Amino acid sequence: MRKIHVIGIGAGDPDQLTLQAVRALRDTDVFFVLDKGEVKSDLTRLRRDLLEAHLPEGGYRVVEARDPERDRRAGGAAYSPAVGDWRGARADIYERLISQELGEDQSGAFLVWGDPALYDSTLGVLEEVLARGTVAFDHDVVPGISSVSALVARHRTGLNRVARPVQITTGRRLAEGFPEGVDDVVVMLDAHQTFRRYAEEDIDIYWGAYIGTPDEILVSGPLAEAGPRIERLRAEARERKGWIMDTYLLRRNPTER
Amino acid sequence: MRKIHVIGIGAGDPDQLTLQAVRALRDTDVFFVLDKGEVKSDLTRLRRDLLEAHLPEGGYRVVEARDPERDRRAGGAAYSPAVGDWRGARADIYERLISQELGEDQSGAFLVWGDPALYDSTLGVLEEVLARGTVAFDHDVVPGISSVSALVARHRTGLNRVARPVQITTGRRLAEGFPEGVDDVVVMLDAHQTFRRYAEEDIDIYWGAYIGTPDEILVSGPLAEAGPRIERLRAEARERKGWIMDTYLLRRNPTER
Repeated sequence: MRKIHVIGIGAGDPDQLTLQAVRALRDTDVFFVLDKGEVKSDLTRLRRDLLEAHLPEGGYRVVEARDPERDRRAGGAAYSPAVGDWRGARADIYERLISQELGEDQSGAFLVWGDPALYDSTLGVLEEVLARGTVAFDHDVVPGISSVSALVARHRTGLNRVARPVQITTGRRLAEGFPEGVDDVVVMLDAHQTFRRYAEEDIDIYWGAYIGTPDEILVSGPLAEAGPRIERLRAEARERKGWIMDTYLLRRNPTER
Repeated sequence: MRKIHVIGIGAGDPDQLTLQAVRALRDTDVFFVLDKGEVKSDLTRLRRDLLEAHLPEGGYRVVEARDPERDRRAGGAAYSPAVGDWRGARADIYERLISQELGEDQSGAFLVWGDPALYDSTLGVLEEVLARGTVAFDHDVVPGISSVSALVARHRTGLNRVARPVQITTGRRLAEGFPEGVDDVVVMLDAHQTFRRYAEEDIDIYWGAYIGTPDEILVSGPLAEAGPRIERLRAEARERKGWIMDTYLLRRNPTER
């Protein structure tokens, strides 16, 4: 039976790999690397560096494939169907990789930045491949340090305050309003600095980009003061590197309401 | 200057330690272990096993202290003040440990189950000690695999569904109602199986106890069916071991509303 490891490799710092992840790397015959195109080639190289660091003796193959383009123009109600099409196109690629590049008794792996449980489609795509019934495989998941955990660790703060909840959401959702019933909100996948909408409120922001890498930038403080600084640093970094990955925690002062 | 590492050591599986955590262990002169009493002595032993596995050459000291009792009877509005008293009592202990057990140029460490960012008081207590100004130290945080990440990895599912939010909350909060605006809710610190309140709803549960340890128990399925099974298994395990640590994800079918 073919075996697939879905391995969380942490948020960017190669030392954030767990011992379990290292073990799974060593158990892998074929690594599948999906390239999201030129702007993300830094990330592809980081993954290759990781393999060379932990598997110096070689003995594995790396198979690269091009990730299908996702139609990011589709907004609002059209969003989920666009994701569906994209997931189907991705499932076609995964199905081909697993059936054609992996022998019957071999192990393959997908390396996922952060934690495969948070805003990553690999598990959903694999389920879709399994549901098709065209190729059989067993799979397991190695949890990773998410960019969320890495962010707050670098800021030396917690995600939640004592006995209170925390919500993890997207920039798109935050644009619809501050989530109900929570004062601590982590925002991922925000290309539009949606935090600007809340600059008038008594909120602290803990922001980070390229967390755990040599390019790491951290800013924290009251949103009214830190927000403009983040906007400037973010634009400069994006210009310089050609891409950015950032995450932030918004912490609202609960006594205000 | 004294140095303190707050090290996330994962949810129970010793292989969930990161390379960064192993490095921090090796950089530590004195480990502070706070024992919560007899029922949790299994956890204290697990921590000692971890040290022996990664620091076979020794060269460190372990200082144990008794955690102050938290008044768990205080409910509702009295909850936060009780936490405050308990945190102050804990800060007294941490202050004493750091000032009396650690030399001026030594490194100390607190080992935290899961991720120090989630429902753990160590960072808050250290801030309180720093604010007192009686002992100076520098500190850093090593993020860990939370029980939340470990739970969903073992169930091979994600925390969020595509482009949707997830909330992490407590059993106490869940008892006040299903959180607004989210359909994926992770519940921690629930001693009362609060999921039973929602047995009539179209919700799937992904539950786990002692995750990553040889005692691990996993149950998933529609709440109406899986709930009673979880109640039975949980009661049996708690009786057998004398303590339980469990976490669960509630995933509501969003078409129902």
